[in-house]
Amino acid sequence: MAQMTAPSLLEANKGRIETDFMGAREVPAAAYWGIQTLRAVENFAITGTQISSYPLLVTALAQIKHAAVLTNFDLGLIDQVKKDAIGQACRDIEQGRLLDQFVVDVIQGGAGTSTNMNANEVIANRALEILGFDKGEYSRIHPNGDVNMGQSTNDVYPTAIRIATIQGTQQLLSAMGHLRLALARKAIEFDDVVKVGRTQLQDAVPMTLGQEFSTYAVMVDEDERRIREALVHLHEINLGATAIGTGLNTHPDYAAQACTHLQRLTGLPLVTAGNLVEATQDCGAFVLFSGMLKRVAVKLSKICNDLRLLSSGPRAGFAEINLPPRQAGSSIMPGKVNPVIPEVVNQVAFEVIGYDLTVTMAAEAGQLQLNAFEPIIARSLFASLASLTAACTGLADHCIDGITANKEFLRSQVESSIGVVTVLNPLIGYDAATSIARQALVDGRSVTSLVLERGLLTAAELDEILRPERLANPQARATEPPPTAVAVPRPDSLPPETVQDRHRS
Amino acid sequence: MAQMTAPSLLEANKGRIETDFMGAREVPAAAYWGIQTLRAVENFAITGTQISSYPLLVTALAQIKHAAVLTNFDLGLIDQVKKDAIGQACRDIEQGRLLDQFVVDVIQGGAGTSTNMNANEVIANRALEILGFDKGEYSRIHPNGDVNMGQSTNDVYPTAIRIATIQGTQQLLSAMGHLRLALARKAIEFDDVVKVGRTQLQDAVPMTLGQEFSTYAVMVDEDERRIREALVHLHEINLGATAIGTGLNTHPDYAAQACTHLQRLTGLPLVTAGNLVEATQDCGAFVLFSGMLKRVAVKLSKICNDLRLLSSGPRAGFAEINLPPRQAGSSIMPGKVNPVIPEVVNQVAFEVIGYDLTVTMAAEAGQLQLNAFEPIIARSLFASLASLTAACTGLADHCIDGITANKEFLRSQVESSIGVVTVLNPLIGYDAATSIARQALVDGRSVTSLVLERGLLTAAELDEILRPERLANPQARATEPPPTAVAVPRPDSLPPETVQDRHRS
Amino acid sequence: MAQMTAPSLLEANKGRIETDFMGAREVPAAAYWGIQTLRAVENFAITGTQISSYPLLVTALAQIKHAAVLTNFDLGLIDQVKKDAIGQACRDIEQGRLLDQFVVDVIQGGAGTSTNMNANEVIANRALEILGFDKGEYSRIHPNGDVNMGQSTNDVYPTAIRIATIQGTQQLLSAMGHLRLALARKAIEFDDVVKVGRTQLQDAVPMTLGQEFSTYAVMVDEDERRIREALVHLHEINLGATAIGTGLNTHPDYAAQACTHLQRLTGLPLVTAGNLVEATQDCGAFVLFSGMLKRVAVKLSKICNDLRLLSSGPRAGFAEINLPPRQAGSSIMPGKVNPVIPEVVNQVAFEVIGYDLTVTMAAEAGQLQLNAFEPIIARSLFASLASLTAACTGLADHCIDGITANKEFLRSQVESSIGVVTVLNPLIGYDAATSIARQALVDGRSVTSLVLERGLLTAAELDEILRPERLANPQARATEPPPTAVAVPRPDSLPPETVQDRHRS
Amino acid sequence: MAQMTAPSLLEANKGRIETDFMGAREVPAAAYWGIQTLRAVENFAITGTQISSYPLLVTALAQIKHAAVLTNFDLGLIDQVKKDAIGQACRDIEQGRLLDQFVVDVIQGGAGTSTNMNANEVIANRALEILGFDKGEYSRIHPNGDVNMGQSTNDVYPTAIRIATIQGTQQLLSAMGHLRLALARKAIEFDDVVKVGRTQLQDAVPMTLGQEFSTYAVMVDEDERRIREALVHLHEINLGATAIGTGLNTHPDYAAQACTHLQRLTGLPLVTAGNLVEATQDCGAFVLFSGMLKRVAVKLSKICNDLRLLSSGPRAGFAEINLPPRQAGSSIMPGKVNPVIPEVVNQVAFEVIGYDLTVTMAAEAGQLQLNAFEPIIARSLFASLASLTAACTGLADHCIDGITANKEFLRSQVESSIGVVTVLNPLIGYDAATSIARQALVDGRSVTSLVLERGLLTAAELDEILRPERLANPQARATEPPPTAVAVPRPDSLPPETVQDRHRS
Repeated sequence: MAQMTAPSLLEANKGRIETDFMGAREVPAAAYWGIQTLRAVENFAITGTQISSYPLLVTALAQIKHAAVLTNFDLGLIDQVKKDAIGQACRDIEQGRLLDQFVVDVIQGGAGTSTNMNANEVIANRALEILGFDKGEYSRIHPNGDVNMGQSTNDVYPTAIRIATIQGTQQLLSAMGHLRLALARKAIEFDDVVKVGRTQLQDAVPMTLGQEFSTYAVMVDEDERRIREALVHLHEINLGATAIGTGLNTHPDYAAQACTHLQRLTGLPLVTAGNLVEATQDCGAFVLFSGMLKRVAVKLSKICNDLRLLSSGPRAGFAEINLPPRQAGSSIMPGKVNPVIPEVVNQVAFEVIGYDLTVTMAAEAGQLQLNAFEPIIARSLFASLASLTAACTGLADHCIDGITANKEFLRSQVESSIGVVTVLNPLIGYDAATSIARQALVDGRSVTSLVLERGLLTAAELDEILRPERLANPQARATEPPPTAVAVPRPDSLPPETVQDRHRS
Repeated sequence: MAQMTAPSLLEANKGRIETDFMGAREVPAAAYWGIQTLRAVENFAITGTQISSYPLLVTALAQIKHAAVLTNFDLGLIDQVKKDAIGQACRDIEQGRLLDQFVVDVIQGGAGTSTNMNANEVIANRALEILGFDKGEYSRIHPNGDVNMGQSTNDVYPTAIRIATIQGTQQLLSAMGHLRLALARKAIEFDDVVKVGRTQLQDAVPMTLGQEFSTYAVMVDEDERRIREALVHLHEINLGATAIGTGLNTHPDYAAQACTHLQRLTGLPLVTAGNLVEATQDCGAFVLFSGMLKRVAVKLSKICNDLRLLSSGPRAGFAEINLPPRQAGSSIMPGKVNPVIPEVVNQVAFEVIGYDLTVTMAAEAGQLQLNAFEPIIARSLFASLASLTAACTGLADHCIDGITANKEFLRSQVESSIGVVTVLNPLIGYDAATSIARQALVDGRSVTSLVLERGLLTAAELDEILRPERLANPQARATEPPPTAVAVPRPDSLPPETVQDRHRS
Repeated sequence: MAQMTAPSLLEANKGRIETDFMGAREVPAAAYWGIQTLRAVENFAITGTQISSYPLLVTALAQIKHAAVLTNFDLGLIDQVKKDAIGQACRDIEQGRLLDQFVVDVIQGGAGTSTNMNANEVIANRALEILGFDKGEYSRIHPNGDVNMGQSTNDVYPTAIRIATIQGTQQLLSAMGHLRLALARKAIEFDDVVKVGRTQLQDAVPMTLGQEFSTYAVMVDEDERRIREALVHLHEINLGATAIGTGLNTHPDYAAQACTHLQRLTGLPLVTAGNLVEATQDCGAFVLFSGMLKRVAVKLSKICNDLRLLSSGPRAGFAEINLPPRQAGSSIMPGKVNPVIPEVVNQVAFEVIGYDLTVTMAAEAGQLQLNAFEPIIARSLFASLASLTAACTGLADHCIDGITANKEFLRSQVESSIGVVTVLNPLIGYDAATSIARQALVDGRSVTSLVLERGLLTAAELDEILRPERLANPQARATEPPPTAVAVPRPDSLPPETVQDRHRS
Repeated sequence: MAQMTAPSLLEANKGRIETDFMGAREVPAAAYWGIQTLRAVENFAITGTQISSYPLLVTALAQIKHAAVLTNFDLGLIDQVKKDAIGQACRDIEQGRLLDQFVVDVIQGGAGTSTNMNANEVIANRALEILGFDKGEYSRIHPNGDVNMGQSTNDVYPTAIRIATIQGTQQLLSAMGHLRLALARKAIEFDDVVKVGRTQLQDAVPMTLGQEFSTYAVMVDEDERRIREALVHLHEINLGATAIGTGLNTHPDYAAQACTHLQRLTGLPLVTAGNLVEATQDCGAFVLFSGMLKRVAVKLSKICNDLRLLSSGPRAGFAEINLPPRQAGSSIMPGKVNPVIPEVVNQVAFEVIGYDLTVTMAAEAGQLQLNAFEPIIARSLFASLASLTAACTGLADHCIDGITANKEFLRSQVESSIGVVTVLNPLIGYDAATSIARQALVDGRSVTSLVLERGLLTAAELDEILRPERLANPQARATEPPPTAVAVPRPDSLPPETVQDRHRS
């Protein structure tokens, strides 16, 4: 509905003329982009969101162009003047300048050619400017001949997506670490809060609220590890493949040297793929990484489902924990406070799961030597990363940190729960225990009173057996210190196993 | 993992020889199917499930073949002897005989050709048998020349899928009606059970449990209506299209007459599609119908999520209702009873939603004049229909019918709830009401006592305003009869609006 | 990655103070929104896209508030001064003013409360301004007490989504009609272009290119009809339900009168749902409508897959048609032109299919009396509508209109094709025809020469039988006029059946 | 539609009576399963497919029960007589006996309790039989007290799913290795077949058909590696967690010792999870593994899409390769042969992608201490593994092995292609090259003739530059041996890099 129209391309009152095989067009005098970008803007008026919304992608494009020109210079294919000017133009963009010149739509046909040409044109015109020439004087520095030398969209674009995805994932990992620490702190805080554990929403056996939160911390921790593993495969680039992977029009040493330059410019341990024909057409790494983000979404959603359930009430619900109020919950019900932060995280999860399907379909649709649908793959990955990063940060700061527990209420529930009968299984047998459980439920009585009434155990025995702390940590030996050492919140560099190991005794 | 291998095709100790363009093969003497089926069984050893698992599909194939031979006879294209024999063979299959001869895998390449040829061969050999010939004497009755006369897989197969889907949907609609009635009966039974309504899992304002169940009944009712609407589009068939929709090799009157015969044989108001080229390649009706089944799945899942939530406990949960126990819930926790019926319905919903994605991908992948992937579309639709039918029936019989309510507990929750403050909004204003609500929560006091303490209303006024029944049915006028008329369970032919209209007053 | 931060809320150098139950906050003096919007902006910094991106949603909110205040005035619940001021404020927004004041994120927790409160606050402050009061003087006009009177987010928000979806769908239908006409024009233009039809990507029997394009036109036409049917269910609104559907705090006549006002303000035949408790929690209509958009996406994708395939080449491909060049296709391969418009439409389809999954998951996750995840449902529907509208328009204007056919090449392929042997089936039998087909393939000879060589038919007979036009329209009788009447492009109001009926004869 | 009804449970004419908390029921005398299985069969009549369809799951259950009884004996918790009898019963099942006794439906509520109890009952009754007791004499050996000692469904069932998945994946890996070798053999066979590479379905630059097939081999190879990585995480089991992960009712040494026994019985390097509370509720490993299978499906589908495209024709298509004929392709078009094997693989891919969504939804729906929906996760994974295994095997044996290439035709296309102009870029510039390309297209002339006509290069220069082999392997140096060493088909144990490294030079 809300379509942004193409930028008012001709509002500058005097433009320059550029030509391509389809004819001549006027480009605004101030624009660093040229005719190919102009045509792409007209062709792809889809979402109204420009690629400038993904600064990490724009930076990666500039780094690749930069690495290419340095390599071409090393190989004697371009002169120093051009190299210096193009290099300077790239550096400008790497430093965040000219971002507003990246104007093509994030969803575009052409397998990313328009994104690549947008970069080629902006860099060429900025380099021309640096050298004192007019924009558009491509006989001096040509977007294709010079800026794109030794390259093809088909190696530049997927390489840029990979670099931007890696950088975006670093931000996500940081947010996840932040969330994990918030959860771990609550695990410590709630270490002595006994409560009724539940399976299938039915009362089961006792545990601690600390165990519940340490579980969430471990989930996030494991996802961080899996993401780091999945990231490895994104470091394989196909720069040097050119059009279809055969490396046509590149120097035999180009791929290796360009990769080295790019490693230095990005600070990433990139490697050239083993089979460039395969690497140019395959989107498997994106599918797998998107599947990984889906897994993160699934777990965040599960955690938030739990938080909303545990905080249901305040009176006619589980009422185990209290989420910090963030805003008035209703325009009609005074005083109502809703779990708005978990709710928004749930929605981010649904969004990410949808994007994963989009990535899957786009990857499956690739044909022969290239996947033409990489732009929607990139868009989906970038949007997922951004939303997940915001969700993790918000969840930690606006929700987890302020959670409190209704400790007394939880202990009273353990004391009246029927599930404690489970611990009597080995003493009185499954069938006798079943009988007591059913009677307790029907008569509204306690397990303790029924066991005593039937003379199965003494009160002293029961006292020891049914102590809530013992039930929640049944394997803690008598001689052990109390189980307080959940995990001190720790800098990200410390091994996260502390949290994990806590509950094993 | 559990792959069924191809049937032991040659275990009969003496077979007959059949040939096709690839050469000669021995077919078991007893088999009604022939060489093309044999090759298909070898080619598609995928799921181990044979198309005989879908008797409605097999019946539909026989009906179509039957309609075709009658039409060809009417048009003077086949003689009476052949017509009678083929017609008799079809009738046998329509009546459930020879089902075990339909042996090709439900997932198959070839756009359904193997299913169609399986039918052609079985019918030809059964017709030969009727006429006293040996199986395999295709010079007398030919699977392609006679049984498939005027047809192509590309019109027979989608027509059969449509008929089988319609018939399967009738079974689903019957199960849904059964479930709706069960829900409506509970709506009446719980009509006077007041309870706390919840939004976002937080206590909101009062309602009745009857309203909750009538909502479920209405949901099912609406889905039944939408399904009936969606079914209409499945009645459009492309019989007569032959290979690509141009009707090559059919008599100009064939399509219309065959449709008429097929209407009679199936009892369905089938119509020939307006554009047969389009109808032959388009799977839009399947996508839409699958989307409709997905909607049913989503709602069933929502209902079951609610049932599991409302029955959570027995002590540390919502504990509003009790599901009938169906089996021991745990191998370790004595006396535990779980909501196993809603849980299995949830899983059916997830299965159906997955199948819908399969249908979507298969439909999208169609190319040019045909969608080669109709077999997986058929498989997915048939499996969804079967699972949903079983789920609705089981949910009604094994769960809904036995649900009881904890009426006293629910009323006590209404009386202590804070949400009732909402009704004071128009009297004391949103800001004052908010203040009372927050204080009630913090101090653990009742709204009533705070209102009285602040002198905002008198006790008598409050008594009238906060009467639970009034809160749950705020628009019931004083002069109206009590709201008891939820809906008498009614035969399916009665208008279902009764349930819907109940709560509007 | 590219997260927009919350607007620089306090950059105006002097703000006003507003308070809620959590405390006092400074709001920029110029802002029409208030403290609840401020808190929401801080809570939901997810996508950086504000709801102002959906002007149809904002307009719908204003229309609903407008209908509510008129109804409340009619019922004697609000005075004329307030009514006039609030009504004027609503009208301003309906006319597009103050759009930039709708600043909460499109993905938000709270089931839309923040969107509703954003509207309430903007309208209240604009009304205060109209009356000459300062912004924030809520004792005069209160966002909740006055603007939101008789309403709840839980009826306002879903009603607004429905209205905005209907309006957005009108735009989509217009774009689809535009696309259908473009396709229909090509169907006429290519009516006499015979070509080889294909099933499963293998040469089948002849048809015309006109039949191919009329198929696409019919597909779009059918989708338009199905959309119109699906739209009907979106006209059912729950305004008057308030919090959970019981209509608490509304006058008994409110729902009906508000619906009447809203009909007039929107020009839409809205109706109040039969069961408001059900209507408040059910998202079935959104699931079904999203499934409908998915079907549109699937068909557009199928059409574009075909267009890319038929235009493959120019030399080593199908080379049947030529898409109009839109931009240079490659940064490295000179002169290459790619099917960029169909490619972008494919990607939109993948996007929409992903959004449908998001809608499905959000709908399934609804609990008890409300679905808290409607904001992501709204976001997904609006984004799908916008992208599909842009895709249809672009496909028609930038691609279909300029398509040309390689007529001679296509006819020569028909003449050398083996598939024409199919027409000989009834004359020489399936087995003999198979033998000829295989020999033609192996020896590289024509079907004609082999039939003659074997003396099966005379040259004259073959000439008549194998005439391409006859093969492509086998059911056209000799006495009929030539099949030229595909369909004159017609205004949208004319019956679209003309296209459909063309190819049946 | 095709619902299998529950087994005719009472057809044996005399049964035994068993009781549970719900009452007494007659169980067939011959049945090894008992009352809990009986109830489950009645409760879950959903798919008609019994868990006996997953023999790997049944074996894994027996191995776990076996490990448990050995551990309990080591810990002094069970006597030798029982240990020996239960151990022998488990061994029987591990060896494939009593498979038909595993009768509960694959889709079931209860989080797998019915599957676990089916195993407990069968083992108990078999052990009773071994000891000479009657079936049902549970006072001697109890399904819960003895067979399930120290266990809960909640640790047994997920552990069994993991083991069965690992074992099923070994079968898949074997099939994938088989497919990879078939592809690699074709890569060698087609090493000297030059052809036109394509991007976006448009002619691009030359390559070899060998490169195309080696790409497929590399894709499969990479998926094998990724699967092996993902499998690692499935080796983490939660045996010893019992109900919710706290290990209630197990000996402190139980988890470690049971894991050791299970390692030996399964031959798998299983490890106990670090946090058992987390491990008991988390389905992340299943989501990730399912996502991995989805990736395999996506790539197989892409490969099959390509195969169908490259073999399109025989005359009006790409006609690059010929798939081996497998069966008659049409019931109406004689001699037509269709790509039925790739088509069935595509459908398997769509099926697997659908199952992945089912897994995702089931995982997301888990609540608190357990995911109740593991049965549908198991079913989806097992079905995906089985179908993918069958698909890989069939694709290799029935399709890849028999593919032939139309070598002369392919070379002629390279010689007439326009894309070769790309190689002239560095010599004559992008703009001049574009001009030649466009003229070649419009005039139907060759690039060579135009370059000569314009005097840009000499004929001798062009001959060398445009040699097809040089274009396809542009980076092969003059002094190098001819590029023949794609990869000798190798046993699975050899490093697969040979294939990958081939095309880099």
